[in-house]
Amino acid sequence: MAHEMHPTRWGDPARATALPDTARGLVELVFPVVDRTVADDAEVSLPSPSLSGEILADLAAVVGGEHVLTDEVSRRLRTRGKSTPDLLRARAGDLSDAPDAVVRPADHDEVQRLLEVAVRHRVAVVPFGGGTSVVGGLVARRATYAGAISLDLGRMTRLLAVDPVSMTATLEPGLRGPDAEVLLAEHGLTLGHFPQSFEYATIGGFAATRSSGQSSAGYGRFDSLVVGLVAATPAGPVELGRAPASAAGPDLRQVFLGSEGAFGVITSVTVRVRPLPQEKVYEGWRWPSFDAGVEAMRTVSQSGLLPTVLRLSDEHETALNLADPDSIGGASSGGCLMIVGFEGTTASVAVRRDAVTALLRGLGGEPAGEEPGRSWEAGRFDAPYLRDSMLDAGVLVETLETAAYWSGLRRTYDAVSAALTEALGDPALVLCHVSHVYETGASLYFTVAASEGDDPLARWAAAKAAAMGALVDSGATITHHHAVGTDHLPWLSAEVGAVGVEILRAVKRSVDPEGILNPGVLVP
Amino acid sequence: MAHEMHPTRWGDPARATALPDTARGLVELVFPVVDRTVADDAEVSLPSPSLSGEILADLAAVVGGEHVLTDEVSRRLRTRGKSTPDLLRARAGDLSDAPDAVVRPADHDEVQRLLEVAVRHRVAVVPFGGGTSVVGGLVARRATYAGAISLDLGRMTRLLAVDPVSMTATLEPGLRGPDAEVLLAEHGLTLGHFPQSFEYATIGGFAATRSSGQSSAGYGRFDSLVVGLVAATPAGPVELGRAPASAAGPDLRQVFLGSEGAFGVITSVTVRVRPLPQEKVYEGWRWPSFDAGVEAMRTVSQSGLLPTVLRLSDEHETALNLADPDSIGGASSGGCLMIVGFEGTTASVAVRRDAVTALLRGLGGEPAGEEPGRSWEAGRFDAPYLRDSMLDAGVLVETLETAAYWSGLRRTYDAVSAALTEALGDPALVLCHVSHVYETGASLYFTVAASEGDDPLARWAAAKAAAMGALVDSGATITHHHAVGTDHLPWLSAEVGAVGVEILRAVKRSVDPEGILNPGVLVP
Repeated sequence: MAHEMHPTRWGDPARATALPDTARGLVELVFPVVDRTVADDAEVSLPSPSLSGEILADLAAVVGGEHVLTDEVSRRLRTRGKSTPDLLRARAGDLSDAPDAVVRPADHDEVQRLLEVAVRHRVAVVPFGGGTSVVGGLVARRATYAGAISLDLGRMTRLLAVDPVSMTATLEPGLRGPDAEVLLAEHGLTLGHFPQSFEYATIGGFAATRSSGQSSAGYGRFDSLVVGLVAATPAGPVELGRAPASAAGPDLRQVFLGSEGAFGVITSVTVRVRPLPQEKVYEGWRWPSFDAGVEAMRTVSQSGLLPTVLRLSDEHETALNLADPDSIGGASSGGCLMIVGFEGTTASVAVRRDAVTALLRGLGGEPAGEEPGRSWEAGRFDAPYLRDSMLDAGVLVETLETAAYWSGLRRTYDAVSAALTEALGDPALVLCHVSHVYETGASLYFTVAASEGDDPLARWAAAKAAAMGALVDSGATITHHHAVGTDHLPWLSAEVGAVGVEILRAVKRSVDPEGILNPGVLVP
Repeated sequence: MAHEMHPTRWGDPARATALPDTARGLVELVFPVVDRTVADDAEVSLPSPSLSGEILADLAAVVGGEHVLTDEVSRRLRTRGKSTPDLLRARAGDLSDAPDAVVRPADHDEVQRLLEVAVRHRVAVVPFGGGTSVVGGLVARRATYAGAISLDLGRMTRLLAVDPVSMTATLEPGLRGPDAEVLLAEHGLTLGHFPQSFEYATIGGFAATRSSGQSSAGYGRFDSLVVGLVAATPAGPVELGRAPASAAGPDLRQVFLGSEGAFGVITSVTVRVRPLPQEKVYEGWRWPSFDAGVEAMRTVSQSGLLPTVLRLSDEHETALNLADPDSIGGASSGGCLMIVGFEGTTASVAVRRDAVTALLRGLGGEPAGEEPGRSWEAGRFDAPYLRDSMLDAGVLVETLETAAYWSGLRRTYDAVSAALTEALGDPALVLCHVSHVYETGASLYFTVAASEGDDPLARWAAAKAAAMGALVDSGATITHHHAVGTDHLPWLSAEVGAVGVEILRAVKRSVDPEGILNPGVLVP
């Protein structure tokens, strides 16, 4: 279980970095820094497991007794996800959402049979991959159920097939990002999906939440990588994707992508893959303002000349770049930092880099060399560790993200920034970057830091609600790549309307008539 | 109504070309050519309209009496689509599927209110755009209904909005391809969607059937062009697409794209648009074999260097190229013709053309100059007129299409070709081209010509069933860009499985509980 994340922190605490002195210095200027302690393991206790012996035996009959875990450590490690509210609850020793058991199936058939057991006994089933949800996707509604199991997909980690002609690979859902890349690299291939959660999140989770990675400009967001999938549902198995594209009615793959465990358990996905890049170059560009940088991103995105990575920090994030405060932020030259990355064959990198460089120069960008790119690459998965360090210092840190069409991006940026700042009051820092671009629009990813106050959970809930209202009012989506979970449910009808919500309910009733799958998640 | 197609032929008969002498010569070598007459208009009679005066009055109350048409000409012109079976029935004077009335709403609100009237009186509603369906998409099931109306969207032809920053445009569903391009061209923009039906088919139809155009390699298939849509459903209006991409659950846009009028009436779509190309170049390439050409298409598709148009005819289609038999087919040098087209800025065309040319040369392609490209461009929308000429000569001509992953493409090609040839017996010609490519696979488009026999409808039905069985067995999709309609319904569960079918039924019940929308189409 070396892959499992710490119960109260992100990832592997041995890898965590303390807040760098420079960053801590900055933070201390703004916030009342205190040292927060986490509840002693000894003080932490889980609710008594509620599953009957009969249910446990029926589950064990499917997967084997050794794969039905009811010990406290196993249950604690699958309690909730890794949003800041999740961490605050875990730090306070609140494990009230712990599953009653952890069940670890070996393959699709076992998942299918587990669902039958769950239906028979009315047990809530929470599919569990990397446990990296930041939207309450792992907190099933428990009332009226005989209990809840964490359906841990950690044993389903095979590369089931590689088709080097079609350039596809079929992967099991429990594969974590790095393990999938290792298996594909043996065939000279890459998936190219590198979200911030990459080191812990899984293939199944990427599919179930419509994940988007830091190289989405070059490789595409995860839903665009999937050409086929298999899912187990209480209504039976479903297999979709007989061709790259089809006109055989609605694209039902797109119904299971983003289904967050509420419509079925995705038991394999077939994804398009690419050759391992011969070369990777990441470089920095400086822009006089966020608007100028956004305008450059838009031009690049609409030119058909996309790099593999395209990322722009606003003035605040640039100044406070915690990963490398000396080289970028500091005294400082101001403006905004953009990271532009190219991956591929040496020839293709050269051609695209030349073209993009000419374009960016023409738009007023100033090359900042490869050092900012290297720095970004080195720290690209580390922000959650910094959050832990900030939480240790009594500073509330959380993120939220959205996407909008280009013409509305600034409106959304202003509205969300203002809502967060007003809701949190001084002192609060609101940083933002754009990290996913499309021809027609882009994402916005906000990082918020504020004093934790007397009740950090309530404080963040109020700020989050204000931000969600602002982004709904400004016309943006309620989430670009974090999913709905339970946290975004109040705003789902603003996103898809009453008819859209009814469609989700209808699909849910169709595939999961007893409502055992991740109840309370996604479907209002 | 100058835009309407002839009741028994494709398009505008004034534009139709008789079979060229060279082609007729070829055909006469193979088939017993006879001259078929079409039933006199005088012999044709429509079923008596079954809608009560009350229903007609309620419909008129929404759209105005002048937009509720019950005359025979109007009803006849909206009877069925343009598949060969549709044409054979129309030629035989069979108008048993005629709608009882044609109703022409002006806008979304009128559509919404018409659906309320239809629900109240249990009237089947068949949304009608260009009438170009080739899959029985306009033949609603009539039993148990008070009647059927053709909901003609021909008055909804506005360009509702252009967002030049986000590069999107919002179009009404009744806009035909050329009219949409004219409106966009006033803003210097193009949609770039040019299916064979382009001259008559509509924006709403493109969306409802997941259409794919001849320039899909460069511009993308229609479902990938849509970022937002509005639909009227009996359950109420639905508006989707708050951002280019979202993780707010399943992508419900993809449920309405391909919904074929069975889930709602699409009343507008917001599509990404591109600048009008400065330059267009189409050129021919020769390949020693279909396999060699397909391998080249795959290499190009996976290189990230796609041209705007990429199209490959197999040996049979190349030899029988009816559009230009002299320059290509004939005696002939054999092999396969590929059309490679580039559109865009002069600079971008030059760069991509150089790169693709180098790639194709390296793979053994032989440049055939721009003449084949010009010839293809001149005749790109004309194949349906040639079908009419062949039908006039007593030759049964029909098409069917699919898509598969690259590794299975040859298997599907062989299986479908064999099934058609065996089912039709001698003499039959089976031609094929690949015209839509993806990184992971491609489409196959078959054209079949055979003697019509005693019962052409039964003869084609048997051949089609054999071909559908072959493509299901070979692992391909039942349709890549023609939709399900009624014709493909028997094979839908092979495509999406029992659970997939149940999901479609569940969505249908949710948005259209009375089942008035295009009953019998799409949903088994």
